[in-house]
Amino acid sequence: MKISIVGATGYAGAELLRLLASHQVAEVKYITSESQPGTAIADIYPHLTRFYPQTLTSLVDLEKLAVESDVIFIGLPHGHAMEVGRKATAINPTIKIIDLGADYRFKNHDVYEEWYKVPHTHREAKTVYGLTELNRSQVREASIVGNPGCYTTASILALAPLVKNNLVDLTTIIVDAKSGVSGAGRGLNLGSHFSEVFESVKAYNVGGHRHTPEIEEVLGGLAGEELTINFTPHLIPMPRGILSTCYANLKAGVTPEMVDEAYNSQYGNEYFVRLLGRGGYPVTKNTRSSNFCDLGWHIDKRTKRVIAISAIDNLVKGAAGQAIQNMNVMFNIDEKTGLDNAPVYP
Amino acid sequence: MKISIVGATGYAGAELLRLLASHQVAEVKYITSESQPGTAIADIYPHLTRFYPQTLTSLVDLEKLAVESDVIFIGLPHGHAMEVGRKATAINPTIKIIDLGADYRFKNHDVYEEWYKVPHTHREAKTVYGLTELNRSQVREASIVGNPGCYTTASILALAPLVKNNLVDLTTIIVDAKSGVSGAGRGLNLGSHFSEVFESVKAYNVGGHRHTPEIEEVLGGLAGEELTINFTPHLIPMPRGILSTCYANLKAGVTPEMVDEAYNSQYGNEYFVRLLGRGGYPVTKNTRSSNFCDLGWHIDKRTKRVIAISAIDNLVKGAAGQAIQNMNVMFNIDEKTGLDNAPVYP
Amino acid sequence: MKISIVGATGYAGAELLRLLASHQVAEVKYITSESQPGTAIADIYPHLTRFYPQTLTSLVDLEKLAVESDVIFIGLPHGHAMEVGRKATAINPTIKIIDLGADYRFKNHDVYEEWYKVPHTHREAKTVYGLTELNRSQVREASIVGNPGCYTTASILALAPLVKNNLVDLTTIIVDAKSGVSGAGRGLNLGSHFSEVFESVKAYNVGGHRHTPEIEEVLGGLAGEELTINFTPHLIPMPRGILSTCYANLKAGVTPEMVDEAYNSQYGNEYFVRLLGRGGYPVTKNTRSSNFCDLGWHIDKRTKRVIAISAIDNLVKGAAGQAIQNMNVMFNIDEKTGLDNAPVYP
Amino acid sequence: MKISIVGATGYAGAELLRLLASHQVAEVKYITSESQPGTAIADIYPHLTRFYPQTLTSLVDLEKLAVESDVIFIGLPHGHAMEVGRKATAINPTIKIIDLGADYRFKNHDVYEEWYKVPHTHREAKTVYGLTELNRSQVREASIVGNPGCYTTASILALAPLVKNNLVDLTTIIVDAKSGVSGAGRGLNLGSHFSEVFESVKAYNVGGHRHTPEIEEVLGGLAGEELTINFTPHLIPMPRGILSTCYANLKAGVTPEMVDEAYNSQYGNEYFVRLLGRGGYPVTKNTRSSNFCDLGWHIDKRTKRVIAISAIDNLVKGAAGQAIQNMNVMFNIDEKTGLDNAPVYP
Repeated sequence: MKISIVGATGYAGAELLRLLASHQVAEVKYITSESQPGTAIADIYPHLTRFYPQTLTSLVDLEKLAVESDVIFIGLPHGHAMEVGRKATAINPTIKIIDLGADYRFKNHDVYEEWYKVPHTHREAKTVYGLTELNRSQVREASIVGNPGCYTTASILALAPLVKNNLVDLTTIIVDAKSGVSGAGRGLNLGSHFSEVFESVKAYNVGGHRHTPEIEEVLGGLAGEELTINFTPHLIPMPRGILSTCYANLKAGVTPEMVDEAYNSQYGNEYFVRLLGRGGYPVTKNTRSSNFCDLGWHIDKRTKRVIAISAIDNLVKGAAGQAIQNMNVMFNIDEKTGLDNAPVYP
Repeated sequence: MKISIVGATGYAGAELLRLLASHQVAEVKYITSESQPGTAIADIYPHLTRFYPQTLTSLVDLEKLAVESDVIFIGLPHGHAMEVGRKATAINPTIKIIDLGADYRFKNHDVYEEWYKVPHTHREAKTVYGLTELNRSQVREASIVGNPGCYTTASILALAPLVKNNLVDLTTIIVDAKSGVSGAGRGLNLGSHFSEVFESVKAYNVGGHRHTPEIEEVLGGLAGEELTINFTPHLIPMPRGILSTCYANLKAGVTPEMVDEAYNSQYGNEYFVRLLGRGGYPVTKNTRSSNFCDLGWHIDKRTKRVIAISAIDNLVKGAAGQAIQNMNVMFNIDEKTGLDNAPVYP
Repeated sequence: MKISIVGATGYAGAELLRLLASHQVAEVKYITSESQPGTAIADIYPHLTRFYPQTLTSLVDLEKLAVESDVIFIGLPHGHAMEVGRKATAINPTIKIIDLGADYRFKNHDVYEEWYKVPHTHREAKTVYGLTELNRSQVREASIVGNPGCYTTASILALAPLVKNNLVDLTTIIVDAKSGVSGAGRGLNLGSHFSEVFESVKAYNVGGHRHTPEIEEVLGGLAGEELTINFTPHLIPMPRGILSTCYANLKAGVTPEMVDEAYNSQYGNEYFVRLLGRGGYPVTKNTRSSNFCDLGWHIDKRTKRVIAISAIDNLVKGAAGQAIQNMNVMFNIDEKTGLDNAPVYP
Repeated sequence: MKISIVGATGYAGAELLRLLASHQVAEVKYITSESQPGTAIADIYPHLTRFYPQTLTSLVDLEKLAVESDVIFIGLPHGHAMEVGRKATAINPTIKIIDLGADYRFKNHDVYEEWYKVPHTHREAKTVYGLTELNRSQVREASIVGNPGCYTTASILALAPLVKNNLVDLTTIIVDAKSGVSGAGRGLNLGSHFSEVFESVKAYNVGGHRHTPEIEEVLGGLAGEELTINFTPHLIPMPRGILSTCYANLKAGVTPEMVDEAYNSQYGNEYFVRLLGRGGYPVTKNTRSSNFCDLGWHIDKRTKRVIAISAIDNLVKGAAGQAIQNMNVMFNIDEKTGLDNAPVYP
């Protein structure tokens, strides 16, 4: 299985390389960067020394890259990925595309255009939303997978059983999410400057974060009707990890056992979802560097609300890990291949 | 003004000492500890070297302490503070008591007993809830002040203008709060162990944290009716700071300008509340080591919710600083005395 | 290959379990704890959920454990490990012992007794000091391996080429080392309390740290004469990682190229030592969660000193990883088995 | 006392503003910035809200600024400060200049030019090196003070008593220093990017850091002869704090008591130097946000070395605090004015 990574110098790209280094089947062919072509990847990310002799190439080689690859992971900014996807599939119709950005995530392209402010230029693509646990059978058949956002993965996994089983009032969903700083990428800005972030927490993009419509579209699909949520992201002084605290009002007559049953039946056989049960408290550090999503839920009898909490590593289950999980599914190999490592703790 | 601190070896006690060291009027008389009597305070907290020659005394000296003090700050576990309060006021009827714990916070002692699991033994005490910005005139006349909890200070300041002005549906209030680890105190446990907390975030006590009824009682008082909220505390890998993200549905007909007006009229003249306005993002680090509460609010038009966000230093405005603010009010001196320092940043 | 871990609830024990979970040959048989027998290991370390169904057993089962195991890793306090080693080898003469503590590290038992303040009760044991890169051939034949300390691993790897090749004045060696907090273990004390350690650095045990005689004995062996060093450990506000900055005066006539050659010939073929060359700067994070030691060296022409710097993950190359590396050597399997993972960055 | 700050948008400038906000005598007149003139300082540093209504001005106003100020603090890059100094003293001959950069630190301008790679354009200036504890009487008479570097302050304070009293072999001095990240400033670069720095430690500029000749010149002056040292800076994952670990061989016949006496006689009456005594361990956090330098020293009998350790807050005693301390001395007011606050802990 020959893999190329287009746009590999961001943290998600580096994490793909880290994980693929111990993937028994995959072989990394090309690694591209428009900003630093000709540089050895180990000079940009010295931790990868011993694992990648490769030098970054430029995308001018797309023809060659598409022909010689079985699958392309794309780590480009939105708007650019669909261009690569369009061209690569034209060059090599059997190639698989897994885009870590937003270009292929939306069924409704108008919503994409409204939130991302660019025209969608690959509307005819047949794509699957790669939240593996929810869409495994479609992923298996897919050529192009839109790999979910980090916040969305955590939030949807926490809320899906409630929404799908009609247990909560859809107008009452609030997601309060806390993310590590690596989610903001390796680009330099004051908001990721060490001394500014350290010993500090803040909210940002209230009501306007682009993962909002993504969560809404997927949950709406599960519910069978459109819904609108509040999604509030927060920046936490740590590099990795997302904790998603999700609130919703229980519908009348819903018992705690019905909630338990919804989670257990949805995820009871999922390797990468570890259910901590009713009353359980996910801890981001317990998932660090791994593809696990830890999940717990709480019923507040006083307010008749359910509070579902999920923890992931934003760079793994929230990005590179789930992308590899999807690749494994698409190529019909053991879904855990390259991902079956215990989290790094403490 | 002679001050004694009963139970001074916790972080709130140390913070009282830090702040009082530059208070122009106050003189610290006795500092007590039952665990380490006879030890110099600077041996327990070396950062206080040069400021306190004192040695910790035991409470067996309560008679003397009460007679020689104008005001006592109490930093004891709940259940113990009211015993000291009862005895000290019996010994010296003109003494002022400021309790940093929960014993004197509740109007409804039954609620206290239900959540704190101990009988209230000082029900006859006339007490004032020391959220200075809301209760300044009562604090001025008070003999016994129940100093608010850290989470409650942040949460009530954020929600009070909305509740008081009848702008939100009282059944929809959700408070998602994020706190630094110093809130858990200096006592040793695995949950405050460095390697466990670092690069990790988690929720705890969902639906059961004792600050819940405190927020409810105060907001209920402002609303003129009982209310029930969801309050979810989270542990953030930093020592100081609380960010409180508060959600509520706006009542029909409430405009953004009405929300702005509620905040501006409530806090426009408050020195220690810094309004960042509609769309503003409080950052805990901007309040670090200071008595400020930074406040911003957001209207989500899609969901018709208001999201109010507050940031404080949990040890200052959330504990020792507000206690001194209350003392200043009680003694009719400039409220800012000893508290008018710029936050330490970065 | 059947493995048992005696004393597994510390961080080094947990790290052994993490790494062994992806070791293709090893099977973990017994995991013991005297403090929490009967508890599932995944309840103590939830990050290990999915990897270990085991419950901790007590050492009263040592007979059975020794018979059914091919190798025992010991994670007990010093003084206790040699008791287990003595008994286990008596029960099963072909068993292999790898002790992560100090009991089997010293050739000179008097030095051990002087620094560790307990009598050595297994002096007749034939042991090998398990710094794999230096003692590989002896490790291959060993029954009992004393796995090196974390500081010593980093320091000896940095200094060995200089000392062995007679390049430096042995009376001038100074090691200034910086360690993450996990080195202090999971036991509760104020020195590992989150709020105390955060945003703080300090030295400790100047002139008295027990890794001092260990470094001295090994370097003395390489030099062919006794030597005395200064070793100063520092606590850094991070869980993992050691940086060891080592100073020594170059002997007259030693050129920079001779220093380069010493490092290159010593480590040029070592997989787990990554040479950054003269002028290179090791970064602890580049080794995080991996078994690599990154090494750079500098010549200061003004002072005629060499400054050698090494970085490791104290729990991996400094403890559990090197223990597994030694096991692999002892069992004649690929030394990288279970250890060939890229570091987790960022 | 009218103060202007030239180049105020860096962390040292912000720290000057923070500290001057509670200085009873000083009044801040102009605050300049060439990068953001016209911006309110509180927009750049929101933590200063309530303390500074000022808007940044440009240096084109230097004439006015020099005439209306009693003292100017300069926070410009090296090479630029001396230009401002030259012009300002020409305009207003009685003005006092305190430069936080390197331009006025060196007696030997050739050394300055060699290490800083720019010609010195204000060689005729009469300047004093503002390490207050060592040069107080000269500072009192000075018009231009070169405020010491952060590393140099910590290192010189630790070593001065040893060098001045002829207790150590001057060829054996090694300074291994550990600094928080704020020392690298607010400018954006990958080396200060949160996710890169977090949970990581590294050395940098071995043998080449510009604070080296500064330490050498000052210690050489105390010794009465030239000397050369090794100075190795390290980056620690925290914003504030420097720990300087200093090694030197004791001269023959030097007793521990002679070392004690050297420290006690040098600093026994210094308010801002807190002696922890022989065997004491300074902790950076105990000095955080304050102007204190904590000092401890150790004698290693085995190696006959002294290890002296100092801790400061790099932005206070290492920059803005000492600058204000010098100003107080120059204006003959209590040296502690505006600086007598207890450190913020934890």
